[in-house]
Amino acid sequence: MLLRSFIIPFRGLPLLQFSITTPTRPARVGRLTLTHGSVETPVFMPCASLGVVKACPADLVAEAGLGMVVSNAYHLWLRPGHEVVRDLGGLHRFMGWDRPILTDSGGFQVFSLARLRDITEEGVAFRSHISGEALRLTAEKSLEIQNALGSDIAMIFDECAPYPSAHDYIERSLERTLRWSERSQAAHANPRQALFGIVQGGVYPDLRARSAEGTVAIGFDGYAIGGLSVGESKAEMLAALETVLPYLPEDQPRYVMGVGTPLDILECAARGVDMFDCVLPTRMARHGSLMTWDGPLKINRAEFARSAEPLDPDCPCPTCRRYSRGFLRHLFTAREPTGWTLLSLHNLTFYARFMAALREAIAAGAVDALRARLSAWTRREREEAPKT
Amino acid sequence: MLLRSFIIPFRGLPLLQFSITTPTRPARVGRLTLTHGSVETPVFMPCASLGVVKACPADLVAEAGLGMVVSNAYHLWLRPGHEVVRDLGGLHRFMGWDRPILTDSGGFQVFSLARLRDITEEGVAFRSHISGEALRLTAEKSLEIQNALGSDIAMIFDECAPYPSAHDYIERSLERTLRWSERSQAAHANPRQALFGIVQGGVYPDLRARSAEGTVAIGFDGYAIGGLSVGESKAEMLAALETVLPYLPEDQPRYVMGVGTPLDILECAARGVDMFDCVLPTRMARHGSLMTWDGPLKINRAEFARSAEPLDPDCPCPTCRRYSRGFLRHLFTAREPTGWTLLSLHNLTFYARFMAALREAIAAGAVDALRARLSAWTRREREEAPKT
Repeated sequence: MLLRSFIIPFRGLPLLQFSITTPTRPARVGRLTLTHGSVETPVFMPCASLGVVKACPADLVAEAGLGMVVSNAYHLWLRPGHEVVRDLGGLHRFMGWDRPILTDSGGFQVFSLARLRDITEEGVAFRSHISGEALRLTAEKSLEIQNALGSDIAMIFDECAPYPSAHDYIERSLERTLRWSERSQAAHANPRQALFGIVQGGVYPDLRARSAEGTVAIGFDGYAIGGLSVGESKAEMLAALETVLPYLPEDQPRYVMGVGTPLDILECAARGVDMFDCVLPTRMARHGSLMTWDGPLKINRAEFARSAEPLDPDCPCPTCRRYSRGFLRHLFTAREPTGWTLLSLHNLTFYARFMAALREAIAAGAVDALRARLSAWTRREREEAPKT
Repeated sequence: MLLRSFIIPFRGLPLLQFSITTPTRPARVGRLTLTHGSVETPVFMPCASLGVVKACPADLVAEAGLGMVVSNAYHLWLRPGHEVVRDLGGLHRFMGWDRPILTDSGGFQVFSLARLRDITEEGVAFRSHISGEALRLTAEKSLEIQNALGSDIAMIFDECAPYPSAHDYIERSLERTLRWSERSQAAHANPRQALFGIVQGGVYPDLRARSAEGTVAIGFDGYAIGGLSVGESKAEMLAALETVLPYLPEDQPRYVMGVGTPLDILECAARGVDMFDCVLPTRMARHGSLMTWDGPLKINRAEFARSAEPLDPDCPCPTCRRYSRGFLRHLFTAREPTGWTLLSLHNLTFYARFMAALREAIAAGAVDALRARLSAWTRREREEAPKT
């Protein structure tokens, strides 16, 4: 666990290079190169909202095979403060992670976590979910925070409207988000950091189209599709995605925010999405749900108490190489923090392996076979996911 | 993190070899060789009561430089059950730790954790602190549990009387513990496991002497001094220790249970004690108290928020090599489990380094200089600790 250099010369380097290495359509395999290194796409980025993937030290995240994480402007602004992170050498050095980082703008968190929100043209007034302090987040403030953090990719400040919302509300919201997108771009001032736009529009095809057109017209280094995985059905999610994708430039990276299960990721990637993030692998681990190719496995099942088998005999992760189901069930039952760490490490490794298998399947034109391999994942998922 | 072999041939090997490598007196440096390997003494053993050092995976405990841990018959009997651990290949394989393990008999825990205790000649009836179930722990049961766990060293079943207790009570208690010691020895049936006696007797010199004589008369592979560090003053603790030590065979290992701070360990080792265990390093870590040669350091101090310094610039642990005080303070403040892991790893490394320095000081006749180096540890400790 040696400290690697966090100082990378950037003069002359583009902020973001995206090359499609396997020119299949609509799914594609590519390589995304950022200030702090490269990842293969489709890529899964675990959430390190507070500067750490929950219960998993940074070196274990890398050992799991993951090369990029998502952190968060809202969380790091509230504590320890973006200026503190900047003064400590920036987010990479702060969290001991020298690979790429994307930061979300706080748009989603201010709507999902904060209290007493008041949305105006200027931004969002709210109370901190930690201190209760009255605060105001705007496009300019979000970019100031993200510029100070120094992530590889910053996101524009958007409103993530709740599901369900009326057509009328979503329309006003997305037009405001387009104005915030322009202001985000104008405020963006870190020359080592790429900036992504975010397409909103809820489940309304006309509004998704309008948001996509408007966002691409402004012009960003990549495009995210937001406001999905917020309660709509899987069919609605994929329909919204299919509406948006034709508007996005083929040669730029596409990111669906907050998605999701392996099957959801597969369905989105099959349609041409390159980047994903979700709290699922670590949250499921802390709830004792372990990911295998045969579907999630509850570690607290009584028959595992005496099982000397690894969680997943085919998994190369340290947890599966070293420990039995019986021991892991014991740690989980006793609420030992080490249990959360070991189970998170397994789930993160599963995601890394799944993404590698997905890239291979896309390159080989074998996505249907991979989808079939996931058939043991929940019945609901199987039934709701339309074929591409 | 490869799985090493847990199967060690034992025919012909003694259960315990203890050699004093530096024949100074009364302090000594030695080597203790057990079924699962060797450690240098004086040795500090962190507590893995439930089969895991709290918040610290087994490979990190080894990385911290610690070679032996203490686990617990009471805890593992209650969950997951000693027969479960045995069926999963024994405690070493269960917890992924292939180095020596000592198990305490449950005598201390049944008095400190369980409810509704009823002590009879037979043993102790109590209610589980987890399920409330009515249970009975006896010398025979404790050895059955420890034999099944397969630790390198088992302990006799004793009563750890509270402090303060009347002379009369302690006398009856220690005589009963002597009978339990004989029954423990008779019940001990694992040919790969050494067995230690435990000297009790509270703070009464005549009773400590009686307990030591009686225990040594029965004859064990090593001798523990129990009932210390339970609330008595440091002067009382060291007086009790000094009463007992002359009765213990010089060529066998001596273990003071539940001690303690670096200074307490130094004072005991200076008097000829070889083995120590305590929850202090990991418990202090979870409370944000970090160990340095200059004394404990509270990580939540406001001035650390912007500190880019490592916890301890001279410490070789992964936490100090990789992270700043500012980041560690942030993790601690946000109650991130990774914070407990990283801070525990540092404190365990400090203990390993302290023990190495202590062995070196004993060998060099420089214990006074090491004591002086610990002078920044609390004023109370400095003032109460008599010089040897």
